[in-house]
Amino acid sequence: MVVAKSWTMVKHFDGAPKPEDFKLVENELPALKDGELMLESVCLTVDPYMRFFGSQITKEDITIRSLVPRLYRRKMMKEGDIMIGAQVARVTESKNPEFPVGGYYVAQGGWTTHFISDGKGLHALPSCWPESLPKSLAIGAVGISGLTAYFGLLEVCSPKKGDVVLVNSAAGSVGSIVGQIAKMKGCKVVGSASSDEKVEYLKEIGFDEAFNYKTVSSLEEALKAASPEGYDCYFENVGGKFAEAALQQMKDFGRIAVCGVISMYNDPVITSGPYIQPYILFKQIRMEGFLVSRWEDRYEEAKKQLLQWVLEGKLKYHEHITNGFENMPAGFIGMLKGENIGKAIIKV
Amino acid sequence: MVVAKSWTMVKHFDGAPKPEDFKLVENELPALKDGELMLESVCLTVDPYMRFFGSQITKEDITIRSLVPRLYRRKMMKEGDIMIGAQVARVTESKNPEFPVGGYYVAQGGWTTHFISDGKGLHALPSCWPESLPKSLAIGAVGISGLTAYFGLLEVCSPKKGDVVLVNSAAGSVGSIVGQIAKMKGCKVVGSASSDEKVEYLKEIGFDEAFNYKTVSSLEEALKAASPEGYDCYFENVGGKFAEAALQQMKDFGRIAVCGVISMYNDPVITSGPYIQPYILFKQIRMEGFLVSRWEDRYEEAKKQLLQWVLEGKLKYHEHITNGFENMPAGFIGMLKGENIGKAIIKV
Repeated sequence: MVVAKSWTMVKHFDGAPKPEDFKLVENELPALKDGELMLESVCLTVDPYMRFFGSQITKEDITIRSLVPRLYRRKMMKEGDIMIGAQVARVTESKNPEFPVGGYYVAQGGWTTHFISDGKGLHALPSCWPESLPKSLAIGAVGISGLTAYFGLLEVCSPKKGDVVLVNSAAGSVGSIVGQIAKMKGCKVVGSASSDEKVEYLKEIGFDEAFNYKTVSSLEEALKAASPEGYDCYFENVGGKFAEAALQQMKDFGRIAVCGVISMYNDPVITSGPYIQPYILFKQIRMEGFLVSRWEDRYEEAKKQLLQWVLEGKLKYHEHITNGFENMPAGFIGMLKGENIGKAIIKV
Repeated sequence: MVVAKSWTMVKHFDGAPKPEDFKLVENELPALKDGELMLESVCLTVDPYMRFFGSQITKEDITIRSLVPRLYRRKMMKEGDIMIGAQVARVTESKNPEFPVGGYYVAQGGWTTHFISDGKGLHALPSCWPESLPKSLAIGAVGISGLTAYFGLLEVCSPKKGDVVLVNSAAGSVGSIVGQIAKMKGCKVVGSASSDEKVEYLKEIGFDEAFNYKTVSSLEEALKAASPEGYDCYFENVGGKFAEAALQQMKDFGRIAVCGVISMYNDPVITSGPYIQPYILFKQIRMEGFLVSRWEDRYEEAKKQLLQWVLEGKLKYHEHITNGFENMPAGFIGMLKGENIGKAIIKV
């Protein structure tokens, strides 16, 4: 008999998620039926989007409601739901010959130690995965974080050799990869992060310029100093005030990929700033939001490329590991506060 | 000896342009040198962008300053400058064999009755221009207004058959053409305008739905009623509050072409509203600003198409004529207030 431990969201997040918003529950899982398999989580990912999908959406709250695309409405969590999310999991028992015991898969099982699957939606780690490489990379640099950076930068920002690329939350799981791919494409890369230690890390992995946005006296001046000529591409992870300052430094025909707005997820209503349409207009800027799932049919090709870059040492990764499934909410809360360098991972 | 009358901007616009911001000046033009020609304006256009280029830009005003793309900084008018703008002009005297007397050209001569040119930047009316067609269309539906609608809609919004297209300032020179081209492409077209008379006009020229944004009780409800399923494409002429409401009604993967922000040109500082990045992100919207000049190398092809549509009766046009060069500031001020249906033209 397998007992699954799972973290549920007992209360919709109000501002920053708090430890008491989560509850650990235990469930006895039933015996496997034919075609099913039992999975045990090895490591799990915590990501900013989970904060958004834990927001309460009332009938009255037009702004937030209208934000959630039809496709994603069913993802919005109700109180008592198991937290959504992905993990690398190992098959411990199988009544499905396609998924042998001992195999490792990336799954969307939510925050849980064990779960039963019929195999749908499971993605095997690439067959050439070397033993030396942490399997957690399959939910990080060679998984969703890497894919997000890869497609967002290459497909939405379309950087050309010589372009100046700006990325914020640059020491995070996605930003750190965006910067490195941009360097490989011959761009000058500027990153902003929330600590001097992170800035140091960005320089180590090849960023041309990096600054701590928390300690600069003016965001505008910091952006100007890092690239007096302005920016061709801007990979947006933050939103809010940062976006406002960055827009002013865009070059004509600049391209902005909106990947996340982490500074805004905790706000109960969407905060205000100057309308951006005049900038968009006179500088002929293209701004596009994306959810990486739109390129799902190209994931395999991209994962292969990312894995190759990692193996060649061209793509460096860093993981911020929280040990113990019981510490998962703390790991999530810490990630939202920006405590991590690179990918925030929970090891069961 | 030719005396040119010209309207200068004697004071930077502060809010809505006022009659006293303009001054009529007279200048004796010198005799022509070899290679030069004398042009006489037949009709001139007044356009919203002229308001923007008459804004004062102080060193302190970071927002407005940072708006003006490098390419366009020299277009910003100083006090005492002749107002910028285009006209259809006739050659009255020529020392340049390429430009015979009696020829009609579209020129960027500014608000003036006569001017000397060396021929650079003059565009002849298409050779197949029929006598029956007003020459003013060369600065309207078959000129810059038509080109703006044509490229902005087709290249930036990329409408597909069956898409729902929203356009505001829809009875204006550009909006009315956007809607008609979208109809030709098999779209459902929704327009908003500032009077019941304009709404009537929109229905006459084939808009599926149209509403008077000044009298609806809620912009959100009006947009929902006109297309409960939302909008695939949004051709933006207005900005501000309208844009805020429209963004909420966009469908996933919606495309927004920012052509103008007429509601904002008179504001001394850029007004504020909710940050739009969350919408852009979760709905995966693409928003792009454009100045039509980027397609300059394709103008001839597009003018040919526009002229053909006009001749076939597929593209209807309406001109709002102000008679008399001395009334040009009044025509400009009236256009900014939305007094015109279709293209606002000044006949000398």
